[in-house]
Amino acid sequence: MPQFGQVTFEPAGISVQIPAGSTIYEAAQAAGVSIDAPCGGQGKCGKCQVVVTRGLVSEPSVLEEEHLTAGEMQQGARLACQTQVQGEVVVRLLTEETVITGKALDGDGLRSVPVAPNVHRYDLEIPAPSLDDQRSDFRRVADALPDTWTELTASVGALRSLASALRADEQKISLCTVGTELVDVRPAFARSHCLGVAVDLGTSTVAAYLLDLETGAQLATAATGNPQAQFGADVISRIEHSNSNPDGLRQLRAEAVQVVNELIQQAVAQAGADLRDVYEVTVVGNTCMHHLFLGLEPRYLAQSPYVPVTTELLSLGAAEVGIDIHPRGKVFCLPCIAGFVGADAVGVIVAGELTRRSRPVLAVDIGTNGELALWSGQRLLTASCAAGPAFEGAEIEHGMRAAPGAIDHIAVVQGDIVVHTIGDEPARGICGSGLVDAMAVVLEMGLVDKAGRIVNDEVSSDLPGTLAQRLQGKGPQRQIVLADSSQSADGPVTFTQKDIRELQLAKSAIRASSEMLLERVGLSADDLAEILIAGAFGNFIDPASALRMGLLPEVPADRISAIGNAAGAGAILALRSCVEREYSRHIAQVAEHIELFRSSEFQTRFAEYMMFE
Amino acid sequence: MPQFGQVTFEPAGISVQIPAGSTIYEAAQAAGVSIDAPCGGQGKCGKCQVVVTRGLVSEPSVLEEEHLTAGEMQQGARLACQTQVQGEVVVRLLTEETVITGKALDGDGLRSVPVAPNVHRYDLEIPAPSLDDQRSDFRRVADALPDTWTELTASVGALRSLASALRADEQKISLCTVGTELVDVRPAFARSHCLGVAVDLGTSTVAAYLLDLETGAQLATAATGNPQAQFGADVISRIEHSNSNPDGLRQLRAEAVQVVNELIQQAVAQAGADLRDVYEVTVVGNTCMHHLFLGLEPRYLAQSPYVPVTTELLSLGAAEVGIDIHPRGKVFCLPCIAGFVGADAVGVIVAGELTRRSRPVLAVDIGTNGELALWSGQRLLTASCAAGPAFEGAEIEHGMRAAPGAIDHIAVVQGDIVVHTIGDEPARGICGSGLVDAMAVVLEMGLVDKAGRIVNDEVSSDLPGTLAQRLQGKGPQRQIVLADSSQSADGPVTFTQKDIRELQLAKSAIRASSEMLLERVGLSADDLAEILIAGAFGNFIDPASALRMGLLPEVPADRISAIGNAAGAGAILALRSCVEREYSRHIAQVAEHIELFRSSEFQTRFAEYMMFE
Repeated sequence: MPQFGQVTFEPAGISVQIPAGSTIYEAAQAAGVSIDAPCGGQGKCGKCQVVVTRGLVSEPSVLEEEHLTAGEMQQGARLACQTQVQGEVVVRLLTEETVITGKALDGDGLRSVPVAPNVHRYDLEIPAPSLDDQRSDFRRVADALPDTWTELTASVGALRSLASALRADEQKISLCTVGTELVDVRPAFARSHCLGVAVDLGTSTVAAYLLDLETGAQLATAATGNPQAQFGADVISRIEHSNSNPDGLRQLRAEAVQVVNELIQQAVAQAGADLRDVYEVTVVGNTCMHHLFLGLEPRYLAQSPYVPVTTELLSLGAAEVGIDIHPRGKVFCLPCIAGFVGADAVGVIVAGELTRRSRPVLAVDIGTNGELALWSGQRLLTASCAAGPAFEGAEIEHGMRAAPGAIDHIAVVQGDIVVHTIGDEPARGICGSGLVDAMAVVLEMGLVDKAGRIVNDEVSSDLPGTLAQRLQGKGPQRQIVLADSSQSADGPVTFTQKDIRELQLAKSAIRASSEMLLERVGLSADDLAEILIAGAFGNFIDPASALRMGLLPEVPADRISAIGNAAGAGAILALRSCVEREYSRHIAQVAEHIELFRSSEFQTRFAEYMMFE
Repeated sequence: MPQFGQVTFEPAGISVQIPAGSTIYEAAQAAGVSIDAPCGGQGKCGKCQVVVTRGLVSEPSVLEEEHLTAGEMQQGARLACQTQVQGEVVVRLLTEETVITGKALDGDGLRSVPVAPNVHRYDLEIPAPSLDDQRSDFRRVADALPDTWTELTASVGALRSLASALRADEQKISLCTVGTELVDVRPAFARSHCLGVAVDLGTSTVAAYLLDLETGAQLATAATGNPQAQFGADVISRIEHSNSNPDGLRQLRAEAVQVVNELIQQAVAQAGADLRDVYEVTVVGNTCMHHLFLGLEPRYLAQSPYVPVTTELLSLGAAEVGIDIHPRGKVFCLPCIAGFVGADAVGVIVAGELTRRSRPVLAVDIGTNGELALWSGQRLLTASCAAGPAFEGAEIEHGMRAAPGAIDHIAVVQGDIVVHTIGDEPARGICGSGLVDAMAVVLEMGLVDKAGRIVNDEVSSDLPGTLAQRLQGKGPQRQIVLADSSQSADGPVTFTQKDIRELQLAKSAIRASSEMLLERVGLSADDLAEILIAGAFGNFIDPASALRMGLLPEVPADRISAIGNAAGAGAILALRSCVEREYSRHIAQVAEHIELFRSSEFQTRFAEYMMFE
């Protein structure tokens, strides 16, 4: 066995040398190639599937035999985290590009606000100095600003270019301020634009929105998967990575900073703009993403009492954070509320203007960590609950992201189940909105009882034949076929007993939390004027299905609104308007965070809502 | 002739390779060896004298023959700027270490103020977080500060170390703030000091004073010559260097930053302290030094209308300026008033508390550029005048700095001139205070008439023999022997007709400016309660002599006070007290700068005060 192995990743053609005996997963990390491994490479999730097309590798492990079918293995499929490299190996990646739906990224749910940014550009003709006017260059510039300016500061960098910029075009200049700071002065002929980027740093997806800060217009958007996924799919496994590797936090921060820089560059290139014209970046993300992006210790977020390093609205130098925009540009991180209610939740509350409403409203963001915000009309309560990743398709037998081939909607037509897939492609799995519909449909059709059990053959024999045939297996192996082989790409897509249990846990956590928040302020579902569902997920789910499965408090379906990627919308609003930015600070200050799970009542309620009514 | 030459500078033994044909002065610059060249290497001042002890160099130039005596040339003396290297050359430097007088550097003139620094250290025990108290780490720290704190900010660097520092010693911490910013948090067992450095960045001398910011005590001082001198002795020749070399400003800035860093290190080492405990630096210097230190374009300081880039009180990140203290420490540059009235003058006004006085006071800082500040009781007027370097010993035949062997005082004893030298050593030249005495004495004894002419033999024949013998030469060559060969190290020290002309120009500029400022506010010399003389020079001159030569408005001698290195004292006061720092801002705001030379009256007055009354 040679001392070194080499792995080439196709189709990108990236090669890396690693010590023989390293796993393909380790090689991918060394090569900077992203392999999705939600469990962090422990062989538990079975998601890091690759195909070894050439070269010598270790024999399949027991864990691989559990996760891979014989057919898959025959075609060379392996789990990257289990497969050790023993020479020169060529590996084909199965990961496809994350499909980003245009809708979420267009910042729908984005309300219109007057453009009042923190960044300003002024075209000025400065009076030339004379023996009668010996004011310094800086003073003449400061005095030439509109009367609304009471204070102007400048970093030494801006001062260094001031004298020559002033004299290059006869004291005609184009200057740019961020807050009270003069950050850029150029001769008028080199007149600049004045741009900003709002960043939504999600656990799975990162998006950047480029704005013209003079008009408020959105010029471009760019998005991609969060490359931190290579260190774990969810925040807990990433915190684990940081805890257990001396270099872990630095790695996670570097990935976050790099992906944000790449997206800014992409958006700027799309718009044909110049990076040096970008003066400000606003960032939202959950508290863990926020900490990892800034390099703040995430350890204590994950252990009781779940304390963040800071929750303040932060104004930081772009250079200090590592963001490549104008060298004197600023990065504003929206405030967080608690360890599990972050700047993304603040963004949702800002976008939804919860506290500006006269009537009660509940905002729900459903993810591995569910976040809830309830505005009672007087008080703003927030809570988080561990919903698990079921609605994101993880821990679900045929779960997948909202990508082509995913079942996204299910209806009952002529007494049988009819599925719709994204892109009308052969079914490859089922995504979040499909799961909500599936749950509603199987309950509706009597395939699953109130306790969440798939009915046995005795009961199912009473069902119409087409439906009855969809039930297969026994006990824990029992499942419902949603799309048979004729409709699918790689064999039937089924909805298993275990899938139902996962969804049951998730919906129970969210529902119990919602109800408990209402009780805290003496309200009931009837009092809610609206329920807002945030996130791309919210755009696609059928409110009636969500109500049918008991995910949300019982309100009329027309009171349920999707507000899209409201976290991103919050970042955009805070970039476009100082009023909204200050509103985010206000939100974080007035929010009362409730640790629901502490209440003995929570377990009772949680158990209660496990039932499907 | 070889293509490359090599120069070794003794006694340091530093070697450098340079293209053959380069001058020794250029080689010194390349080697980082400091050669004093007030004219900037143009062969005008004759000060860059070195001895070539070995190797092939160019023949002496006409300029060298003008500046060097035949004896000097026989011993191998050359002007570094004129001598081209043609092979391997060994050069002996004649420059000696600048002698820094202890008195000026101890910050005499330093009044006592309550310690109220911008930097604070707190030893705190922070309440541990719990499920009942989930405030962020930052919030718990901010809330634990005394009630006087309304706002606390933090850079990302401080936040990165916060979580672990808090938990290393059971939530007991030692924290440090600069202004409203949390800059450092350490576990209590790693308790820190809290230090600051005041820097006086003079054209010739740079001094640093290390202070304990908790007690206000001065712990150490360090000083050295300004290494920028290699690019020219005065601000004008340094600005010239910056203008005519693409890399000139960067070089000048690098030298300034490096010397400040070295002095801070020296002072810290002297006190047995730690650089990371230094959180703040205050800097004074004239406007040119201020600009060069910060890398601001100095070009327009030297051309009408003499406009600085900025005159504001600047608060900058130490890292941004290049100063090696605590990485999140700050540098405060005291404000300037005008192109030729800088932060050093502001320091003098702060130290002298001019505007806090009820009665009129004039402060004078005599240097190549003379700076004046007049407080009328209501208005603060400032002015500058080109006094020339005569009082610093430049352009004076036997002029030298206040170093051992310099004649610093002259008296008349039993009808003859008696000189005193620093260190009671054989006379080697004459320094500023000696020149003032010399001028007063020769006027007093009738050796020089009111027009500043050394009396001719006809007149001198009436003088006592001992005095008459001191007069030598004729016309422009006429001179007065102050110390003959028996009293001196290298031949007689004389006071020449040209020396007198130089002093006449300098005193006239200062006197005319002082009188004109008084007139502007309707005052006369009689109204002055005090005249303050700033600078080391002021500590040594005899007020009676200064009055006799007409340097200052006519006040009783007891109203003249030396306030020592008041610029440095101003930097120390601004470091020790925020009140004094704000006072410096106030001074810069209220000062009315007057360009006296614009007035047609100035030429009249200047001519008038050329006469010795």
